Amino acid sequence: MPKVALYAGSFDPITNGHTDLIKRSLQFVDRLIVAVAVNVQKQSLFSKEERESLIRSALDNDPRVDVRSFEGLLVEFALKLEVPVLIRGLRAVSDYEYEYQMALMNRHLAPTMETVFMVPSLDTTYISSSMVREVAKFGGDISNLVHPAVAKALRDKFRTG
Amino acid sequence: MPKVALYAGSFDPITNGHTDLIKRSLQFVDRLIVAVAVNVQKQSLFSKEERESLIRSALDNDPRVDVRSFEGLLVEFALKLEVPVLIRGLRAVSDYEYEYQMALMNRHLAPTMETVFMVPSLDTTYISSSMVREVAKFGGDISNLVHPAVAKALRDKFRTG
Amino acid sequence: MPKVALYAGSFDPITNGHTDLIKRSLQFVDRLIVAVAVNVQKQSLFSKEERESLIRSALDNDPRVDVRSFEGLLVEFALKLEVPVLIRGLRAVSDYEYEYQMALMNRHLAPTMETVFMVPSLDTTYISSSMVREVAKFGGDISNLVHPAVAKALRDKFRTG
Amino acid sequence: MPKVALYAGSFDPITNGHTDLIKRSLQFVDRLIVAVAVNVQKQSLFSKEERESLIRSALDNDPRVDVRSFEGLLVEFALKLEVPVLIRGLRAVSDYEYEYQMALMNRHLAPTMETVFMVPSLDTTYISSSMVREVAKFGGDISNLVHPAVAKALRDKFRTG
Amino acid sequence: MPKVALYAGSFDPITNGHTDLIKRSLQFVDRLIVAVAVNVQKQSLFSKEERESLIRSALDNDPRVDVRSFEGLLVEFALKLEVPVLIRGLRAVSDYEYEYQMALMNRHLAPTMETVFMVPSLDTTYISSSMVREVAKFGGDISNLVHPAVAKALRDKFRTG
Amino acid sequence: MPKVALYAGSFDPITNGHTDLIKRSLQFVDRLIVAVAVNVQKQSLFSKEERESLIRSALDNDPRVDVRSFEGLLVEFALKLEVPVLIRGLRAVSDYEYEYQMALMNRHLAPTMETVFMVPSLDTTYISSSMVREVAKFGGDISNLVHPAVAKALRDKFRTG
Repeated sequence: MPKVALYAGSFDPITNGHTDLIKRSLQFVDRLIVAVAVNVQKQSLFSKEERESLIRSALDNDPRVDVRSFEGLLVEFALKLEVPVLIRGLRAVSDYEYEYQMALMNRHLAPTMETVFMVPSLDTTYISSSMVREVAKFGGDISNLVHPAVAKALRDKFRTG
Repeated sequence: MPKVALYAGSFDPITNGHTDLIKRSLQFVDRLIVAVAVNVQKQSLFSKEERESLIRSALDNDPRVDVRSFEGLLVEFALKLEVPVLIRGLRAVSDYEYEYQMALMNRHLAPTMETVFMVPSLDTTYISSSMVREVAKFGGDISNLVHPAVAKALRDKFRTG
Repeated sequence: MPKVALYAGSFDPITNGHTDLIKRSLQFVDRLIVAVAVNVQKQSLFSKEERESLIRSALDNDPRVDVRSFEGLLVEFALKLEVPVLIRGLRAVSDYEYEYQMALMNRHLAPTMETVFMVPSLDTTYISSSMVREVAKFGGDISNLVHPAVAKALRDKFRTG
Repeated sequence: MPKVALYAGSFDPITNGHTDLIKRSLQFVDRLIVAVAVNVQKQSLFSKEERESLIRSALDNDPRVDVRSFEGLLVEFALKLEVPVLIRGLRAVSDYEYEYQMALMNRHLAPTMETVFMVPSLDTTYISSSMVREVAKFGGDISNLVHPAVAKALRDKFRTG
Repeated sequence: MPKVALYAGSFDPITNGHTDLIKRSLQFVDRLIVAVAVNVQKQSLFSKEERESLIRSALDNDPRVDVRSFEGLLVEFALKLEVPVLIRGLRAVSDYEYEYQMALMNRHLAPTMETVFMVPSLDTTYISSSMVREVAKFGGDISNLVHPAVAKALRDKFRTG
Repeated sequence: MPKVALYAGSFDPITNGHTDLIKRSLQFVDRLIVAVAVNVQKQSLFSKEERESLIRSALDNDPRVDVRSFEGLLVEFALKLEVPVLIRGLRAVSDYEYEYQMALMNRHLAPTMETVFMVPSLDTTYISSSMVREVAKFGGDISNLVHPAVAKALRDKFRTG
């Protein structure tokens, strides 16, 4: 029986921090669903389709990874897919507080669902999608922060934006 | 001489976490003013009147509790009512940091005003108004998170919203 | 009916931070029991009797304050005295974490017992008994950190010690 | 291929918090090694053999769990057993800081070893071995904090101790 | 060779907390550039020119301080001015987390740039520009929180606003 | 006028984390005093003389660094040497809390003394003297954690110890 887990986020866009965590988790699960959380009330830089496509590029179309999108409650999406484990990355203490509250709420809503936290690689600790967008917007060097395909997409976005 | 305290918040809507704290505080004070903070610049799900009404319902119209609304500085509202103690709930560390700064600013503005922190019941730790709104919006089960009257109001709001 | 609360600690020795908190709490309670926690397995600078005596001096023998000592579980001591409220000071986040765990354990052991946290005066934030002992030991100026009677006791202790 | 993980600690003694985490992790791994860390320089209440035996009792001799002891570096013990995953419980922020540093050091010493964090059940949040020992020592009620076999062992220890 | 450092912020408006930090840093640097970060996407109470002018007033036109504005990445502005040190104030733990991530990102973008943190005076710990704006908006007393020139500007702003 | 600062610690032994911070600080100060804090009541692995000697080796006898030892209060040692700035490294949040309290106490004892915090290199974040001693004690690889001279000293110590 294959072990499956779900890793959700807004991935606007996917960074080297996300990629590092995805690769680490593939050491323990046979299949990973990477799920783009779509929030119609919050403006994103990249569209749902662009974000999905950039995730696939950043992971070199790894066949063990299934890229999806969802709207609504993460826990209901996971239940529908019958995925029993949610994977989250932990960088800072402030991350942890929010993640802890979310994990408890998700356990309340779906008692059999387990949340598992992993530590990203040290040299990706300071990389977040919002910082990457900020650096890219002002023409800073992002080549060590994201996959080349994402870097190109960011340059295109801010050139035309 | 009756001991009075004030418990303020946006209560959008009141949750089982708030109710738990209110009941705990009534073990030490004879009368509690529950004050809805109205912020005209921030959109709320429920109107001032709805929030006041839901608080009364969630507390079964407890005669020891006086539900009010205020705009502006909490500390000035408390001074006007001659309430010497502010009660706050502490869930997480990040709560504490902000609450600590607020308590110090309030002490600066009103040196005789004291802020007192209480620990909510463990099984309400992960309940916040914003999470409740999020769960309700997507049709998740909120029956263990809020009073039945609040659950009904949330369902009505999102059905018509 | 008089409102009573309990404020416990090792008070080795009492500092201006403790005194500040005691005075603040006397705005809300009619009587305060200040309880010296005696731990026979941990060496203290001052004896139980010395610590009790210095607390009385630092509070100018305030008749609303009852100074006691106890060994064992704080919560059982509080139950025996029929005191329903424990008062704790909160300085830093690391304080809060431990205090939070203690408050939950105490609530588990005595469900009717409530723990209430207060914020000490800003200018006593950095004062702890251990830092005061350290400064006094090396002859630093402690006159603004403790009551004159405590300062004298510290000087005597380190002169003869 | 069976998935194996390692959960280490001093387990002096095992509490309901540990048991909860072990049961949760068995939803994702086929076999779990529970490893008692032996530190000859630190005094423990229970001997290595007692701690191992109490773990087996608390888990009702679950055949999926292998109870072991080790001295020295956890990461070297895990490498010797060819276990690729370390499981840790996260309760508070202060836990997380230390655990984060340990996870990074372990990754430095064994780059292929991954540390995975899980959130214990809310109602075990405030249970630690040291608090359990403290409560038991002074005759407090520990029946909801540990397995009956552990409660009996604690009572025996403090009666004769 | 004069030692130069840069202290950036939105200064909307400058508070006694900022002024305290600037004065402290002038004990170690010969010249300080105070840089107003302009963010066209975020609404500010005071214009760029007003903020610059209020900084000069609050510092009594200290000739060692050079007030500037910038848009875009702080680190690129600092590189252009050939300033090797960024000065930041640390108040709370939550400050520290964000500041730490920023310092690491800035080091990534400009490896020779160093970020140095200072502790503001205790009695300015609870002062932030946003709290000052909030207090001023509702007519609270801000005379001990900001320079008289800033207090006047705030009163003018909210009278006409 | 040369700018001087003081960096104190127990350095038992000096790690790559300390060395990184010392090198960073030499970008801003002309001379750095590295001061070994001697605590006669706490057992150390290396003697005062060994610790001083290992610091000199780890810094390749950099002539800008003056290695000293002191007993008693850091702030009095700094005042005696007429050094106006204390440098501290910040790794984790828990570091920050203690460091913040110390900085405030030192400012109380010596109002003109300023404490300045720096962020160590990411790849030294998880290195502490106590972890290095632990790893070395059990024969783990410490070659990337400390200077070769320190690694040799640790091996010698644990071989004969």
